[in-house]
Amino acid sequence: MNEPSTTAGDGPGAAIGLTYEEVGPELVRATVPVAPIVQQPAGLVHGGVLSLVAESIASYATAEVVLADGMVPVGQSNSATFLRPITAGTIHATARRRHAGRTTWIWDVEITDDAERLCAMVRMTIAVRPAPAG
Amino acid sequence: MNEPSTTAGDGPGAAIGLTYEEVGPELVRATVPVAPIVQQPAGLVHGGVLSLVAESIASYATAEVVLADGMVPVGQSNSATFLRPITAGTIHATARRRHAGRTTWIWDVEITDDAERLCAMVRMTIAVRPAPAG
Amino acid sequence: MNEPSTTAGDGPGAAIGLTYEEVGPELVRATVPVAPIVQQPAGLVHGGVLSLVAESIASYATAEVVLADGMVPVGQSNSATFLRPITAGTIHATARRRHAGRTTWIWDVEITDDAERLCAMVRMTIAVRPAPAG
Amino acid sequence: MNEPSTTAGDGPGAAIGLTYEEVGPELVRATVPVAPIVQQPAGLVHGGVLSLVAESIASYATAEVVLADGMVPVGQSNSATFLRPITAGTIHATARRRHAGRTTWIWDVEITDDAERLCAMVRMTIAVRPAPAG
Repeated sequence: MNEPSTTAGDGPGAAIGLTYEEVGPELVRATVPVAPIVQQPAGLVHGGVLSLVAESIASYATAEVVLADGMVPVGQSNSATFLRPITAGTIHATARRRHAGRTTWIWDVEITDDAERLCAMVRMTIAVRPAPAG
Repeated sequence: MNEPSTTAGDGPGAAIGLTYEEVGPELVRATVPVAPIVQQPAGLVHGGVLSLVAESIASYATAEVVLADGMVPVGQSNSATFLRPITAGTIHATARRRHAGRTTWIWDVEITDDAERLCAMVRMTIAVRPAPAG
Repeated sequence: MNEPSTTAGDGPGAAIGLTYEEVGPELVRATVPVAPIVQQPAGLVHGGVLSLVAESIASYATAEVVLADGMVPVGQSNSATFLRPITAGTIHATARRRHAGRTTWIWDVEITDDAERLCAMVRMTIAVRPAPAG
Repeated sequence: MNEPSTTAGDGPGAAIGLTYEEVGPELVRATVPVAPIVQQPAGLVHGGVLSLVAESIASYATAEVVLADGMVPVGQSNSATFLRPITAGTIHATARRRHAGRTTWIWDVEITDDAERLCAMVRMTIAVRPAPAG
């Protein structure tokens, strides 16, 4: 699970150019280029895009593990704190798994800019439930 | 401020088809059609899209008020709780202002489906700061 | 369920003088007197006390309803935003139920001071689960 | 700053028996004994107590650093996720600083039980502002 992965089926992830750099059961790294599709009217990266990136990469990495056990990830909450704007270059996202319980996984996602400054922190809580039959 | 508005400059909002139905200083209503660009691999609406919609509409409505005073809205936190999936039809978002302080505004955004079932709740905290000079 | 209620068994609620003014399935009102046991070193009401009050009253009101169905409330998340300090007088808490689903209830709690100024907002997410046997 | 510290002035912290084991600018460890004053009616540790402990220790450690610069810490948000109940023994809290910006500090607090199982995670956002004159 350490090769770069795709955004197959992830509509908004694909639209914004989300690219996985590393995917493992406890760590995910991905990037998004800053372009008009991720910017708000003042030219800054739209905060909601950072929430979206966190949700995509945490869900993807959770699915990679739990689908094999007949379980599916279901997002429960997504809580983002914004610290510093990003205006150009590349959005860098790193998700670290903080908890992998029987029913709940928690990922902490850090968003940094090209100068490695911390720009946002996102906590994703994902329920892990039996896959629907069929 | 009660006519439908545009997503001019809102890159991701425009990309997903965000349409304002009503914009006022205390209430905003908007919709997004369910289509591949807002869906995750299992076909559900991507949770991050709901966070994004909340951020767009709360920020837009705040800007409509505070820009006239030489202030700008700056997203501080975006906290979403997901209750029920949306799989088809239209995403309906209603933002209600809960607090309009000197330095902080808070909006509670409810996301519903075509059957008017509550699917997600998002709390947006927006700092209101002096606009940068120039 | 509209008479004032007690904090029987609620150790920290009783210790800080939590008093219920109204308890119903969709609305709870309670107060706490400002005294040293709720203050932090600078004399302000400790933010954690506001989180605690929200958790007590939302859990109590949920239990009043669901215990009759053989279910128990289990706190899942407690998210507080602080807007303005309280330094004297009485803490006023009002919890409004925003969602009562099959597995999850959500309460929004507003904390105000004696001048009815909004001082904090707390969102409580409570899982509702079958009571353990025995 | 590595010696155990006191809860002087921290009313609720002192009332529940909060004891600092280690205090530094980037790490704090503290404990609370499980006793009726921290339990809810079912005998579990009250979730609000965990929010309170996180707020006390993160605020204390921030104050230790910023007061020397004429600044004061002001709690902005306290967001707790509960994973597993604690029913007996000792509550263990470890706060790690994740961000120390010019205006905002963020601490992630993990709550564990005597078996070192993760029971709750709390994210504290603290504004750092100039101390009021006088």
